[in-house]
Amino acid sequence: MQLESIERLILAFSTLPGIGKKSARRLTFFLLDHDPSLGKNLSEALLGVYESIDHCPQCGFYKTREEPCSLCSDLHRDTASLCVVSKIQDCIAIESSNAFLGQYHILGGTISPLDGVSPKDLRIDALFQRIADGSFTEIVLALDATVDGETTAQYLYSHLDGSDLRITRIAAGIPFGTELEYTDRITISRALNMRRDFSR
Amino acid sequence: MQLESIERLILAFSTLPGIGKKSARRLTFFLLDHDPSLGKNLSEALLGVYESIDHCPQCGFYKTREEPCSLCSDLHRDTASLCVVSKIQDCIAIESSNAFLGQYHILGGTISPLDGVSPKDLRIDALFQRIADGSFTEIVLALDATVDGETTAQYLYSHLDGSDLRITRIAAGIPFGTELEYTDRITISRALNMRRDFSR
Repeated sequence: MQLESIERLILAFSTLPGIGKKSARRLTFFLLDHDPSLGKNLSEALLGVYESIDHCPQCGFYKTREEPCSLCSDLHRDTASLCVVSKIQDCIAIESSNAFLGQYHILGGTISPLDGVSPKDLRIDALFQRIADGSFTEIVLALDATVDGETTAQYLYSHLDGSDLRITRIAAGIPFGTELEYTDRITISRALNMRRDFSR
Repeated sequence: MQLESIERLILAFSTLPGIGKKSARRLTFFLLDHDPSLGKNLSEALLGVYESIDHCPQCGFYKTREEPCSLCSDLHRDTASLCVVSKIQDCIAIESSNAFLGQYHILGGTISPLDGVSPKDLRIDALFQRIADGSFTEIVLALDATVDGETTAQYLYSHLDGSDLRITRIAAGIPFGTELEYTDRITISRALNMRRDFSR
């Protein structure tokens, strides 16, 4: 009654995040019940992504193996400002906001003493090298508003402070569309501390 | 910024049931962030399932291409009783209960005038042929307790009634672990109509 290849597919699906044994069964039987092209397409797309996707050695973003990095090689982007993020997804999120048109540096994580992640485990030396070699005038620290993100920002700031560079960080405050009543007090306290003069 | 092979994988994941665009992105970036063997294994498992899995021409259950059907060829199973279900998953559910050790026949759906599914679209002719050829003494109708399941059961019963066969159906009633207070009235009414003499 146990068909090995079905069990193997269920197991493979259940290694993915948010997919338990039950969802994995449902996906497997869905594929078996439908046109094989669906599953074959997924299979090819999986291989294709490993065959074609690489990391840019400079910024750390995804790039295709054949072409140069779409971010670093974009001549329309400002070469004087560098945005430091922890993950590739953060870079994608910032790009989708269209609010930054400079260069990126992806650290590959945040400093986390509890999880045993030290500065050496991240692309921090590469960042300092890039700053030393480059013509940047501003470094934007766009790290998570979490304890680890804060630790990482403080670490970077302590090493970059004193140079001619302008070191900035993205604002902490009330997220768009949120009512004050339901906002936690740390966010409110940060938003108050970061208050600015009102202008039209 | 749009990397074609990443977009393709996101799209392929989002064709699966219960996986929206956001989950598909999360799965894709999870795979890109982890050991490629995870995704390659999923890719191979997907192809493997199509290469190795077939349907048993007799009962309709999954079988490997090389071997005979694990249900039909099992000599320990009773050949006198035949359980009729609509879907393969129903067969798996019954098998996991260990309460039936006879033969199966999977219809491939239920009669549904609203969805345009007529008896001709299901493996009903094959069922009648199998009953005519076989040595069955009991046909167990194990169809969903839904309108379409009921329609299908009535249709089969109307064609099989009058023969020497014992036609039975699985009981409708209160599911295990349920409180009467929270049970819908149709279930309660069916459970009452199907009441049996109390025995220790």
